Amino acid sequence: MNYADRLQAAVDCTGNACLVGLDPILELLPADFAAARDVERPRAERARALGDFCCEVIDVVAGRIPAVKPQSAFFEALGSDGVRQFERVVARAKNAGLIVIADVKRGDIASTAEAYAHAFLGGVAGVHEDELADAVTLSPFLGSDSIAPFLDVCKRTGRGCYVLVRTSNKGSADFQRHGSPELSFQVADAVVKWGSELVGESGLSSVGAVVGATHGAELASFRERMPRTPFLLPGYGAQGAGANDVVGAFLSPSRSGAPRGALVNSSRGILFAHREPRHAGKSWKDATRAALDAMIQDLGAALGAR
Amino acid sequence: MNYADRLQAAVDCTGNACLVGLDPILELLPADFAAARDVERPRAERARALGDFCCEVIDVVAGRIPAVKPQSAFFEALGSDGVRQFERVVARAKNAGLIVIADVKRGDIASTAEAYAHAFLGGVAGVHEDELADAVTLSPFLGSDSIAPFLDVCKRTGRGCYVLVRTSNKGSADFQRHGSPELSFQVADAVVKWGSELVGESGLSSVGAVVGATHGAELASFRERMPRTPFLLPGYGAQGAGANDVVGAFLSPSRSGAPRGALVNSSRGILFAHREPRHAGKSWKDATRAALDAMIQDLGAALGAR
Repeated sequence: MNYADRLQAAVDCTGNACLVGLDPILELLPADFAAARDVERPRAERARALGDFCCEVIDVVAGRIPAVKPQSAFFEALGSDGVRQFERVVARAKNAGLIVIADVKRGDIASTAEAYAHAFLGGVAGVHEDELADAVTLSPFLGSDSIAPFLDVCKRTGRGCYVLVRTSNKGSADFQRHGSPELSFQVADAVVKWGSELVGESGLSSVGAVVGATHGAELASFRERMPRTPFLLPGYGAQGAGANDVVGAFLSPSRSGAPRGALVNSSRGILFAHREPRHAGKSWKDATRAALDAMIQDLGAALGAR
Repeated sequence: MNYADRLQAAVDCTGNACLVGLDPILELLPADFAAARDVERPRAERARALGDFCCEVIDVVAGRIPAVKPQSAFFEALGSDGVRQFERVVARAKNAGLIVIADVKRGDIASTAEAYAHAFLGGVAGVHEDELADAVTLSPFLGSDSIAPFLDVCKRTGRGCYVLVRTSNKGSADFQRHGSPELSFQVADAVVKWGSELVGESGLSSVGAVVGATHGAELASFRERMPRTPFLLPGYGAQGAGANDVVGAFLSPSRSGAPRGALVNSSRGILFAHREPRHAGKSWKDATRAALDAMIQDLGAALGAR
């Protein structure tokens, strides 16, 4: 089954388009997982604590939201032991019924890109299917031939990808706004082309776009350029964007009345809610649950009001 | 000690600027390592065979060339077992006295980029120092704030990075030539700026640039824009570029008469030389040795003739 359709089914089921980013930043982990930052411990033990935290977060959010997005970098920082935990976290999230988007932002020449596609999305024999993500984030800097191997694997496996179009950070303006029309628009047009053969029954393609929620004013023009592209919107919460900033990225609701066309990501705002004064006195799980409920409610209200 | 200075010392020592890319493509491995592509075997065993091959290549090339460039994707394709072997290969190469450039092409927002910097270049307690690379390749798509964490780690650890400026593949034209001046020139100017505080006694910076050897005609203009930047030139051999194409990337020789300012990478042409008709009858090691000798000779002749 097409990735875009599977994703929409998950959104229909939960009724919201919230995506929780699994960014286990060592310094911010709750006290229960302090072993992860204890440099005196063996690396495998530290990685295990990092994985434990993510698995517990998954248990908290499963059934409430359609998808999670583990960020590879925080696992890779603990070497192969960390990568082993990344695999465990992906498997745990899939078992819990969540769509998994591996945030890896890879991008390389075709023969190398093919190896990355196999690493994260499969499409070859001998991979551990339960450890493969449903979709992956990609950097477009190397051009069409660097994306093609992923399109091929997506077609064969029913998986998806999200290409960086305009990122949420300040520095995104340095190169992504270069030229006229700006580079991001060129990439957006390419994303439409790359995704044209992967449009599912939901009317959306399995080739998505990462567009920072921090660029609220521009979201509408990106949406206009990419009418059938699922958006992944980072930047909500800790990075400064709110529910009203992301409304323009959504398409008309699905038949079941659920949001369609975008996922809104929050990482630190959900995972590390226990550090915020407004959640003082709560356990980290209760804080995470409360922060997620607030996000679901805020997004629902903003989408309902349009 | 500054990365650029350590690199120049290694080039002075071997007298050539050849870089062997460790791209262990499963289908191309010599028969001795067929276990790596046997999907019936446990993944750890397959990864071990992949690592064994790279370690044997390192034994063949050590002492003859200054540096190697393991390509992470081919290891990641075998999951955490593959990443474990990547670490082993990095450690083996460093023990053999080779400079190690981890080809990972990472690029992400600052907090995430910091985790990647720690993963590959260290700069924090608790990392396995012997498994860390000397330098890393980076994608600039997310802008200055995505590069800054690497510059910080490079300053503190004496390590280096190479930023993608113009890649060797055909698709590089899609976005890297976008705008006027083209994006690659913008990135080149940024590379100079990023590297300005990391210039060593060799007169070169520890912030390098990846410029495809396949763009021979443009190399001179990139060199003009980046006069103190070490170049990493992929595209030699299997991708079509020859010794004369890369001459324009080099600066005046070092005091010892060795090449200065660039490394020329060949991966498949060296690793899989045994598959070429001209090396028929040779063992894979003899074929690799002969191909490397030919590359060293060809480059030396081209540089000597200018």
